[in-house]
Amino acid sequence: MKIVGKKIRRVDGSEKAYGNSRYSADYRFDRMLVCGVKRAGVAHAILKKIDTASAERIDGIVKIATYVDVPGENNLGLVIDDMPLLVPEGGKIRYEGDAVALVVAEDEDVLEEALEKIEIDYEPLEVVLDMRKAIEDRVKIHDTSNVRFHRKIRRGNVEKVLKESYIVVSMDFETGYQEHAYLETQGILSVVEDDGSITIYGSMQCPFYVREHVSRILGLPQNMVNVVQVETGGAFGGKEDVPSYVAAKSALMAYLTKRPVKLIYRREEDFIETSKRHPSFSHYDVGFSKDGKITAVKAQIYLDMGAYATLSPIVMYRTLIHSCGAYKVDNVHVDVYGVYTNKVPSGAFRGFGSPQVLFAIETIMDEAAKRLGIDRWDIRYINALDVGDETSTGQRLDHSVGAKKTLLNVKEMSNYEKLKKEVEEFNARNKYKKRGIGVSHIFYGVSLGAGGQHLDASGAEVHVHPDGSVTIMIGGTEMGQGARTTMAMIASEILGQRIEKIRVLKPQTSIVQDSGPTVASRTTLFSGNAVKIACEKIRDRMVKYLAGRFGVPESDVSIEYGYYRVGNEKIEFDEIAKMCDSSNVKLFEVGWFVSPKLNFDMENGVGEAYITYTYASQITLAEVDLLTGKEKVLEVWVSHDVGKIINLDGVVGQIHGGTVQGIGYALYEKLVYDEDGKMLTTNFNNYTIPTIKDVPRIHIKMVEEEYKEGPFGAKGIGEPSLMVSPPSVASAISDAVKVRFTRLPITPEEVILKLTERGG
Amino acid sequence: MKIVGKKIRRVDGSEKAYGNSRYSADYRFDRMLVCGVKRAGVAHAILKKIDTASAERIDGIVKIATYVDVPGENNLGLVIDDMPLLVPEGGKIRYEGDAVALVVAEDEDVLEEALEKIEIDYEPLEVVLDMRKAIEDRVKIHDTSNVRFHRKIRRGNVEKVLKESYIVVSMDFETGYQEHAYLETQGILSVVEDDGSITIYGSMQCPFYVREHVSRILGLPQNMVNVVQVETGGAFGGKEDVPSYVAAKSALMAYLTKRPVKLIYRREEDFIETSKRHPSFSHYDVGFSKDGKITAVKAQIYLDMGAYATLSPIVMYRTLIHSCGAYKVDNVHVDVYGVYTNKVPSGAFRGFGSPQVLFAIETIMDEAAKRLGIDRWDIRYINALDVGDETSTGQRLDHSVGAKKTLLNVKEMSNYEKLKKEVEEFNARNKYKKRGIGVSHIFYGVSLGAGGQHLDASGAEVHVHPDGSVTIMIGGTEMGQGARTTMAMIASEILGQRIEKIRVLKPQTSIVQDSGPTVASRTTLFSGNAVKIACEKIRDRMVKYLAGRFGVPESDVSIEYGYYRVGNEKIEFDEIAKMCDSSNVKLFEVGWFVSPKLNFDMENGVGEAYITYTYASQITLAEVDLLTGKEKVLEVWVSHDVGKIINLDGVVGQIHGGTVQGIGYALYEKLVYDEDGKMLTTNFNNYTIPTIKDVPRIHIKMVEEEYKEGPFGAKGIGEPSLMVSPPSVASAISDAVKVRFTRLPITPEEVILKLTERGG
Repeated sequence: MKIVGKKIRRVDGSEKAYGNSRYSADYRFDRMLVCGVKRAGVAHAILKKIDTASAERIDGIVKIATYVDVPGENNLGLVIDDMPLLVPEGGKIRYEGDAVALVVAEDEDVLEEALEKIEIDYEPLEVVLDMRKAIEDRVKIHDTSNVRFHRKIRRGNVEKVLKESYIVVSMDFETGYQEHAYLETQGILSVVEDDGSITIYGSMQCPFYVREHVSRILGLPQNMVNVVQVETGGAFGGKEDVPSYVAAKSALMAYLTKRPVKLIYRREEDFIETSKRHPSFSHYDVGFSKDGKITAVKAQIYLDMGAYATLSPIVMYRTLIHSCGAYKVDNVHVDVYGVYTNKVPSGAFRGFGSPQVLFAIETIMDEAAKRLGIDRWDIRYINALDVGDETSTGQRLDHSVGAKKTLLNVKEMSNYEKLKKEVEEFNARNKYKKRGIGVSHIFYGVSLGAGGQHLDASGAEVHVHPDGSVTIMIGGTEMGQGARTTMAMIASEILGQRIEKIRVLKPQTSIVQDSGPTVASRTTLFSGNAVKIACEKIRDRMVKYLAGRFGVPESDVSIEYGYYRVGNEKIEFDEIAKMCDSSNVKLFEVGWFVSPKLNFDMENGVGEAYITYTYASQITLAEVDLLTGKEKVLEVWVSHDVGKIINLDGVVGQIHGGTVQGIGYALYEKLVYDEDGKMLTTNFNNYTIPTIKDVPRIHIKMVEEEYKEGPFGAKGIGEPSLMVSPPSVASAISDAVKVRFTRLPITPEEVILKLTERGG
Repeated sequence: MKIVGKKIRRVDGSEKAYGNSRYSADYRFDRMLVCGVKRAGVAHAILKKIDTASAERIDGIVKIATYVDVPGENNLGLVIDDMPLLVPEGGKIRYEGDAVALVVAEDEDVLEEALEKIEIDYEPLEVVLDMRKAIEDRVKIHDTSNVRFHRKIRRGNVEKVLKESYIVVSMDFETGYQEHAYLETQGILSVVEDDGSITIYGSMQCPFYVREHVSRILGLPQNMVNVVQVETGGAFGGKEDVPSYVAAKSALMAYLTKRPVKLIYRREEDFIETSKRHPSFSHYDVGFSKDGKITAVKAQIYLDMGAYATLSPIVMYRTLIHSCGAYKVDNVHVDVYGVYTNKVPSGAFRGFGSPQVLFAIETIMDEAAKRLGIDRWDIRYINALDVGDETSTGQRLDHSVGAKKTLLNVKEMSNYEKLKKEVEEFNARNKYKKRGIGVSHIFYGVSLGAGGQHLDASGAEVHVHPDGSVTIMIGGTEMGQGARTTMAMIASEILGQRIEKIRVLKPQTSIVQDSGPTVASRTTLFSGNAVKIACEKIRDRMVKYLAGRFGVPESDVSIEYGYYRVGNEKIEFDEIAKMCDSSNVKLFEVGWFVSPKLNFDMENGVGEAYITYTYASQITLAEVDLLTGKEKVLEVWVSHDVGKIINLDGVVGQIHGGTVQGIGYALYEKLVYDEDGKMLTTNFNNYTIPTIKDVPRIHIKMVEEEYKEGPFGAKGIGEPSLMVSPPSVASAISDAVKVRFTRLPITPEEVILKLTERGG
């Protein structure tokens, strides 16, 4: 390999480092209006009347729109149609973030004034915040039961096997919200073009979703909506579907006024309106043999969808498949339920419904180890998957299973046995400071899986220009994760052009084919393959041309870095491009990569759930101050099987970020509502996320069990980097405090509470 | 055919009619600066010093740049490197339009003031305006001879055959400048992007040329220069190379200031600086047999290139190949010379160096007819080309030769014999008003020809979106000629989608492959074929998918308009797209059409000069007031062989426009310089172009001799529509006044002058 797997400078690094990158808020168009959203402010009510009259009289207010102004469908539903763009009079308000009116103004000042002057008349309804109350269905939030979705796995004979098991670990778990806390809040600008089409510029993961929503809201065909992703300051799933809802608002106002419209959310608005990780509660009964083998898993898992379904049915699929962890389990009986409440809709978040259940199953592994007197690492190794094994859905794994290698790596790296001793000694020495070791082991189903196969194809376009410089466009997005660098590396490797001469453009939906969403850790695999396919076609033509020109067989032409070799002669890539251009050789191509087909029984949750899996293990050393409850993660040893490393720094960056975001989920991040359904934690002053001071020493060792369908064997790293972290951190805290924590986040208050309960 | 050849509404008609279309001048960017050009103002001098100090002190002036500020090459040369972007100190000023400095300011007012305050110190040189004086080479404008280029045809034995001919018609001709008179002047905006790349927005024909120049001036690779053509208000060749020079100026100032820069030419600046049709003089000796057959052509043709070569060497190729007209000639000895003078550079203009010589050869045909006592129509028919014939370069025509049919058409349409009688009767009745009939017959070599084969390939991208709507991008440009409509029609015909659902985007050089220039009437043929190729691939996949889904052979699927038929079932195109999308069928493609190879001996001007030819004939009825010289073209009968009509209204529009622009060239348009090299006619107050009142009744009958390499058989119409007009109009005026006019334009003053000379 000439560049794949190497440590290289991020292709968009300097523009970001120097502050040249422009994010949504940095854009300004001529004659631009600013937009604001009037939200309901109550959690459950019938909307009787919207009075915009006095707001409209304010000088500088250009237009106020309500549900009557929507030219297309007043419907933002994604999987099911349960969510309006603007709540209609006579319709229902289902959470405080529901939009009732939109305002555009010449400047920000009058905007705020107008938003305050819009009055709504409503009839309050009983507010349902707690899932347990929602399940009772006494107060219904939609026309259906509040328990709107159900997914299940039915495999083997769980009841019988549980009865026969040596032990059964039965536990309840609860996890809270997590806010994405992307650096950049949601923001979309909309511009009506000469031909009546609309261009959307904004921060997003999924431009094709945005196109679909804007097209629907405005009643325009998709070729009249061009969605351009601009530099995006973090997303983590929080910009999967949400930008569609923001764009619909911005686009509507541009459409109505025929002027550019800018809608940027303040942090508080972003907290109140936009999706979070699903809170959950679950009950698990897991059987084990005497030697520590899992015999059966029975689980009931409830996910809090909030007021609208949005992506919940899809999230629940991943919850389901990951509910038994990264282990061989032949008897499975899992139910996952999606429940409406009068809170912010939950949606996509790095890990996508899996961290909740991975925390549960991994905690059970710890508990079982304890009860069986087996080491926590050993019990995972005993149950870990290998080539030839079947997953909990019965999918036989035929290659690329590095699970055990990741376990072996973290054991070796951390010097596990010695570490255990050191901790024991430390704890013996210290009365109020206690250390603990956590162990976790997870897997991750790469890409969209059986439920999303119809979306699982990606396109790319590659142009080699006459001077040899290269332009690439993919349907996937760069949101900070490094996709642009990875794509440039793949193109560089295949074409033989230097990476400095390769530019990856921001996607535009009119110009690149619908490539599905940039989620599910699928970009390297899907967009990467599409780029690879396109580049291979171009490279083959260049080789053929050179062979013809030099009168040698094609096999005599070899691809080097920045040049090709023909026999003994070195020919610069730029020179070859120039020659080919003059001979009208076709130096541009499209690539299209389609997901391998999956055979899955959706009714019973049995079969090939995902095209492949990544695997990860983590050992964590943490310390807890028993007097204050203050926790500190000191050191982390982590190993991932990503198939193949393409962008080394990108992989490391993902792991660093995921580890820390996982620490936040496990220990700090707690979103609070009051009893009326008003969110109390709407900024980082009271919603606490890890800072640079909370970052532990992180040791990484990778496993590369190549996946045959991946580009150069790559699988994915975006999400597993986070998923392996929380159970390991929680495990370490439990180990330090000698209390089994079953609720996330384990805040210092939670530690003190548990210690107090225990009477410590 | 479902839509090809039909009369349909122009796809970009309504946005233009309603005034929604935005042209360069309509664009505004945030923090935008306005740019102005300080021009030399003298025609020939050594530039000693540029003093910008006092201009720089003006408040609101952001930057003044001279030659020292160019980061890349200070070189705008196109074919040869003879033209600087900014004349350096110590360098030469070669015409009044030479740029010496560029200014950007916060607003227009200070801009003008600053331009006035920039002072240049120079040493005047003798000014050479007249080609005859330039040829003497006493005063050299560049380091070389003023006669910089020479092209020739040497075929047969001209001297011998001329001696043996029944008659030899020897005549001198002279033609003047023609200004393109596009509605919209030159204008380019430049924006530096986050990543240091530059985006160019502007009015242009050839975005890939612009990219090359901006890349060269700034020293940036081509993938860092994205050229976006915006709505372009007419071009006619005047926006082939010129926008590159304008863009270089605008881009330089954006690059230096890191702010968006707008440079829009006022009409006077546009007149003074930018290219025109080459003035010419020529001498022809043409031999004829007794029965009117051309035996030999000998010609020396001089084209006035002005101060810089720009496109002249390419223009001269077309002059050369068209110098003998649309006739069989076996003995040819033609020399074409390109001559420097201290005037505005001549360049591309609809017809591209051919109208000058077509006027000459057609006038000779009239004169020969007169001397031989043959009717003017007959002498053309006798010499006209047919399948199996060879052109004057010896290219054998094997198909698609509708020349004689066009002659027969105009004869029949005009009721030629009756018309002649009516004119005779009119002239007998009227003493001071005289009518005349003109006849012309021409051919046109389609696309770039043997000299430009390396540029003669075009690309297209087609996307069918999940809802069935379609987006197309081509490398060719829409400049008013209707390319967008023609491309949409081709896509509609092939895909079977309704034309309303097809959107053709403006090109961007980063996203569509270098497709050569949009010139030489090549867009329908080249871009059209590229679109067709891409659409065919997509359509074939849709058919295959449907056949598979319905379990029928592919031959049972037929493409209709807006739907496909499978057996008896009608399935909407939108529905098929949706189904294909859900099955991950690849619904996007690129097309690449490469010119058929030409075998041409450049040294002797012999061989296959062009891939094919179009043919046209025109009969014109005109009236002249002998007292005032006032001329009026009353009626025109014209027939073109375009291979195949795709966009009917587009063809008709081209013919109407070309006819009228040809009338302007023949009769009205006269550009005047004073003896110091200052242009005196710099706006439409004294440079007269035809108005709506000058439009004659135009009768059209088309010939469709399909060309096997053309999309559906199409060849091209852009230029021949103009080329056939001037000789026919001049012929009619000569016929009316009974004076052989050999100089264009034949202004009323010219008529009076000739009548006075004759003593009438």
